[in-house]
Amino acid sequence: MKSYRHSVVVHWGDTDPAKIVFYPNYFVWFDESTRMYFESVGLNWDTLMERYNAVGFPIVDAHARFLLPSMFRDEIIVESSIGKWNEKTFVVNHVIYNKDKKSVEGEETRVWAMPHPDDPTRLKAGVIPEEIRKAFE
Amino acid sequence: MKSYRHSVVVHWGDTDPAKIVFYPNYFVWFDESTRMYFESVGLNWDTLMERYNAVGFPIVDAHARFLLPSMFRDEIIVESSIGKWNEKTFVVNHVIYNKDKKSVEGEETRVWAMPHPDDPTRLKAGVIPEEIRKAFE
Amino acid sequence: MKSYRHSVVVHWGDTDPAKIVFYPNYFVWFDESTRMYFESVGLNWDTLMERYNAVGFPIVDAHARFLLPSMFRDEIIVESSIGKWNEKTFVVNHVIYNKDKKSVEGEETRVWAMPHPDDPTRLKAGVIPEEIRKAFE
Amino acid sequence: MKSYRHSVVVHWGDTDPAKIVFYPNYFVWFDESTRMYFESVGLNWDTLMERYNAVGFPIVDAHARFLLPSMFRDEIIVESSIGKWNEKTFVVNHVIYNKDKKSVEGEETRVWAMPHPDDPTRLKAGVIPEEIRKAFE
Repeated sequence: MKSYRHSVVVHWGDTDPAKIVFYPNYFVWFDESTRMYFESVGLNWDTLMERYNAVGFPIVDAHARFLLPSMFRDEIIVESSIGKWNEKTFVVNHVIYNKDKKSVEGEETRVWAMPHPDDPTRLKAGVIPEEIRKAFE
Repeated sequence: MKSYRHSVVVHWGDTDPAKIVFYPNYFVWFDESTRMYFESVGLNWDTLMERYNAVGFPIVDAHARFLLPSMFRDEIIVESSIGKWNEKTFVVNHVIYNKDKKSVEGEETRVWAMPHPDDPTRLKAGVIPEEIRKAFE
Repeated sequence: MKSYRHSVVVHWGDTDPAKIVFYPNYFVWFDESTRMYFESVGLNWDTLMERYNAVGFPIVDAHARFLLPSMFRDEIIVESSIGKWNEKTFVVNHVIYNKDKKSVEGEETRVWAMPHPDDPTRLKAGVIPEEIRKAFE
Repeated sequence: MKSYRHSVVVHWGDTDPAKIVFYPNYFVWFDESTRMYFESVGLNWDTLMERYNAVGFPIVDAHARFLLPSMFRDEIIVESSIGKWNEKTFVVNHVIYNKDKKSVEGEETRVWAMPHPDDPTRLKAGVIPEEIRKAFE
């Protein structure tokens, strides 16, 4: 299965008076990484909408365990992989490494969302196409 | 002329390792205060759209001078007032007080934006209706 | 047991192109609410440090389930309560309501942190004083 | 004079319901770029503190003009250069390009700050050492 790794520099504004990353920022990085992970397997926003009629992946569950703090100027690695495919939802696992040590680990559960057939302002969960799963293999 | 004052609590995550507010947050509070100021004179989002066909006030210029720092747990007052009405743009002045001392002062210049007549995905600057100016008197 | 409720206005900048709250902001509100909850029972920052030698409550686990989206101008209620006291950690439960419907629910697990006796730049987990637990009863 | 260019990807969470960058984020990128610019000429945080006793560059003035919006997935270029050296303050100019068009331009004025000789919890403005200016030539 394909995974995705990229590095993130911890900036001054990401950190708090305890001089460590303010924890909601880790979820910002999870969110960014999920989108970049999809792009990395050829599933960018335009493709998802045009070919699969997907309008996004609304989050239903986010969880993180904070093992070691990171500080201003640290360069961290975010590694994302598919944790599980369900029929209409999927789980993305994220692990953040700082100097080769596992710093944060977490999961996002997201819905495969499509326009609601009766009301274009609403969304409904759709069945995840087999091609999407295959793109990550 | 009507002005608008409200208080904001400085939260832990608003501050940086120097233990003071990370400066872009002052612009977040400027933006919030501009919208609340409009609401305070009866011009909420729905009214602006339905009655005046306005689709927002995109920013063209933002400026702030930082006089005194604020810290975690400080309760600051944001005071907003119209600095100037131009034909298609307007200036909102913001002053932030901390314990009665002026802490930050700044200005936002914003455009009165309407849907472009030839292309609904674009915006164009519109002439600010006289009623809008009057609402602030 | 005492709980804490306060309201939060969803601002323009809290929301994303899907016009709903960008999910990491819910964790920002959890973090804010935990600190305000402590303050509401008389345990503010200064008291915690001076009387109990506590230097903060570093987070070790954060989890949220997103049930219903919230949008610009929604006024949401954040309700926080102690989920569990452990010897050196504690769990804060957070529930967010939007128009009386449960919108988000989550938990933060935090450590009772004290300066490390051998190295003031490090922290160690301390035993949570009985008086702290009592303050929430 | 040396300048510094780097690219920034506009992420989903950086944008607002109008589908464009929420403007305070441009100041976040200005702040990041100023620190990276100093690092790029060999003046990282540790060097600044250890060799020059500098404790930071508190901001006193920030200004931006927003010429063209940027959207989710745009890759923008931030270019920073010294605008002016004063005795105890300096101006950093920032220009942001999107697809070779100037999108935002702005300036930050910052103080060269040192510990106050009479009170280590306070800062005072110091004279900017000649070596610092030279590092940017």
